[in-house]
Amino acid sequence: MPATDPTMESIAATLAAFVADTPDDAIPAEVRTRAPHHMLDAVGIALASTRYDFAHKTLTALRGLAGEGPVPVIGMPASLPARDAATVNGLLCHGLDYDDTHIGGVIHPTASVMPAVLSAAAMTGADGRSVVSAYVLGVEVAARLGAVARGGFHQVGFHPTGMIGVFGCALAAGRLLGLTRAQLAAAQGIALSMASGSLEFLEDGAWNKRLHPGWAAAAGITAAALAREGFTGVTRPYEGRFGLFNAYLGKEAGRAELSIATAGLGETWELMATAIKPYPACHFTHACVDAALELRRDGLDLARIRRIEALVPEQVVKTVCEPEANKKRPSNSYDAQFSVPFLVAAALVRGRLTLAELENDALGDAAILDIASKVSYRHDPDSPFPKAYSGELVITLDDGRELRHREHINRGAADRPLSNAEIVDKYRGNAAMTVNETAAARIADAVLGLDASPRAADSLSVLSPSVR
Amino acid sequence: MPATDPTMESIAATLAAFVADTPDDAIPAEVRTRAPHHMLDAVGIALASTRYDFAHKTLTALRGLAGEGPVPVIGMPASLPARDAATVNGLLCHGLDYDDTHIGGVIHPTASVMPAVLSAAAMTGADGRSVVSAYVLGVEVAARLGAVARGGFHQVGFHPTGMIGVFGCALAAGRLLGLTRAQLAAAQGIALSMASGSLEFLEDGAWNKRLHPGWAAAAGITAAALAREGFTGVTRPYEGRFGLFNAYLGKEAGRAELSIATAGLGETWELMATAIKPYPACHFTHACVDAALELRRDGLDLARIRRIEALVPEQVVKTVCEPEANKKRPSNSYDAQFSVPFLVAAALVRGRLTLAELENDALGDAAILDIASKVSYRHDPDSPFPKAYSGELVITLDDGRELRHREHINRGAADRPLSNAEIVDKYRGNAAMTVNETAAARIADAVLGLDASPRAADSLSVLSPSVR
Repeated sequence: MPATDPTMESIAATLAAFVADTPDDAIPAEVRTRAPHHMLDAVGIALASTRYDFAHKTLTALRGLAGEGPVPVIGMPASLPARDAATVNGLLCHGLDYDDTHIGGVIHPTASVMPAVLSAAAMTGADGRSVVSAYVLGVEVAARLGAVARGGFHQVGFHPTGMIGVFGCALAAGRLLGLTRAQLAAAQGIALSMASGSLEFLEDGAWNKRLHPGWAAAAGITAAALAREGFTGVTRPYEGRFGLFNAYLGKEAGRAELSIATAGLGETWELMATAIKPYPACHFTHACVDAALELRRDGLDLARIRRIEALVPEQVVKTVCEPEANKKRPSNSYDAQFSVPFLVAAALVRGRLTLAELENDALGDAAILDIASKVSYRHDPDSPFPKAYSGELVITLDDGRELRHREHINRGAADRPLSNAEIVDKYRGNAAMTVNETAAARIADAVLGLDASPRAADSLSVLSPSVR
Repeated sequence: MPATDPTMESIAATLAAFVADTPDDAIPAEVRTRAPHHMLDAVGIALASTRYDFAHKTLTALRGLAGEGPVPVIGMPASLPARDAATVNGLLCHGLDYDDTHIGGVIHPTASVMPAVLSAAAMTGADGRSVVSAYVLGVEVAARLGAVARGGFHQVGFHPTGMIGVFGCALAAGRLLGLTRAQLAAAQGIALSMASGSLEFLEDGAWNKRLHPGWAAAAGITAAALAREGFTGVTRPYEGRFGLFNAYLGKEAGRAELSIATAGLGETWELMATAIKPYPACHFTHACVDAALELRRDGLDLARIRRIEALVPEQVVKTVCEPEANKKRPSNSYDAQFSVPFLVAAALVRGRLTLAELENDALGDAAILDIASKVSYRHDPDSPFPKAYSGELVITLDDGRELRHREHINRGAADRPLSNAEIVDKYRGNAAMTVNETAAARIADAVLGLDASPRAADSLSVLSPSVR
């Protein structure tokens, strides 16, 4: 890490001033419009998550600790105290690995920041405009802090969505709670003592990852509340000798590029570089899935497929193509999310790739498995990886004819974002898994109309069937 | 870190079985008697802490988040939901740096484990015998896990009292909550995602350190509650590739000695190796303070002192003797806690070293500062450091006569523990700062009689003036 001048204002102080002093109307209209679409995307995923037992078990555990409260749980007949609601809502948004990603920060920012502002909105009675601003600023800070590490947290075993999320949440909640600059700086200093999030779940598929953004949100709210009362926090939580990057990055501390945290603050908006996933699967598979859907739209006869060759970036082969036997016949939905053969086959057979294609009936669908068995792979020599994740399919028919389609930049990446309309479509598909069209539309209206709401918590009460 | 056999039972599973299966009466009577004395020591410190603004600010912040609840806050007219009470109680126990220390683990175990079991006792209606057992087992695990790191956390910038405390608290709370072996293992796996605690406060004296044990307790309770409902946690939170020791110890991971976590479990009892501080000051100063009190008891005439030489272990000079000018005239109580000249002088002038000797009137006491100005230091060539922290004073009188006293092993260290009666005396002095003798006696009776209480929460309701 480059040495910093100790007489310089700390990064926390600079970020505090940015979050305290940015007026609502300094956030460009395009960003203000995009923000509720990211929130809606997260709400749709949360609604879909309520079908799974991780959601119900978490809700039961937390309700057993502190009982009911004023903040709605998305899609569940429950409302909880502010921090518990934030914990459960974060879990719901991130639980299916389908939420947005800031590629440079390697972080899922909305899954922590949105629950934090939902809870803070209920605590304060803030208007929608303030809530949208706090959300945008929280995402901005979290994305930048994640990017400082330049991938280092993943190398040493930490999950930045939790580890970094707590700082974005402390600032976003702190802005709504009316903290001064000095208090916002202290909130980050306190948050350092709560920063956590381990990648050990990669070893055994435990549910830990699902918990990280919600825990970060609850911790961030706590840090903001303590700072508001005058609890002091460390001055240099990021660049200090034992600060976030020096302590947690360990032997990778040299990677950190601190200037990313603050350079051009207020000029660029990282929300616009935050990718929305079109499919509930590993980002590395998306371009191949898009190619499959494109070829199907062109009128492909599945019965005539002899073989399919997938071209993927060399660097992702181990993750999404190997070992081949497992990938061609995934044993659970998590494995399926990381399988090019299965996902391509499911897209070809069903003409879509949604959460339904990860359910048990799809995993056992003979038509899908037959196609999956015909998929092989090779390296894509022209891939722009890691700037974008390319994918190409070459399908050979029984008469020897070849059909091919290439996606050089995966859809959803920063250079090829989903349109707002595509995000609403994705939301509708997810919402449809648990609520009827009327409810889905009411929720969409409330979230997309948030910027004009006189009292955000009232407008957002539709998120839970239990409130009003 | 030594390689481990992946087919071996994980450390978490071994610790879970130990905590689940150890009967109350397998804990030796001597340990069962000692345990409430450690708890009483922590309660006395907590009572004294309520005089300071950090206590009130923290209580206000947390009460503002989730309101009142069933668990008493020690010495304050408040009762809070289980996790918030644990947070505040942990802060009170550790806030004055006067609580017990497991020297090998470099951890303050009671400040996190006692608040966790107080809250769990209120949640479950457990009897006192169960609470004492849960406390002893939580301390046992936390002390061992801290010792595994062999000082490494301090080298890389983490505070094990928080970082490790969460695991002891998850297990102690989990035992009272009735978790199965498998659930206790999962609770540790979940706790890994909450492990936190930074040493950055060393750079600027921020309050972060005070928060760590209480935050660990609240997190541990949460992990236990989630595990009870079936939330899955990572299988190998300690020895895993991205587990506690590999990820957090960074370049110091090679120090970790995993066998310490489990070798001889149930045979040795780490509570008996946990030091109680006789003085509210850095452990490195204690032997010199004892020497001063001893020389004073021998009838020293302070007016005749020409100079005092302190012999201290070479390794602690930078912490408690330098820079000399600051040490001879400390500017605040925190500095005073780390000053051999001031503490020796205060002990000589006042005949004791309590929290009162860290107050502003003591810091400005001309008689103390005059003696302090006469103190110099040199290395103790015979020190057993770090096994114990030696100290010796050589006082030269105006007639050239020399008086000397040596403490080769600091009182309170494992080989020279405070007696239970000395702990009760220490408690009385601390309690007297905020409650009258009747209340202090009632509290002592409740805590020391805990093992026989049919319902611990009822007996312990005397801890707060607000309950009953």
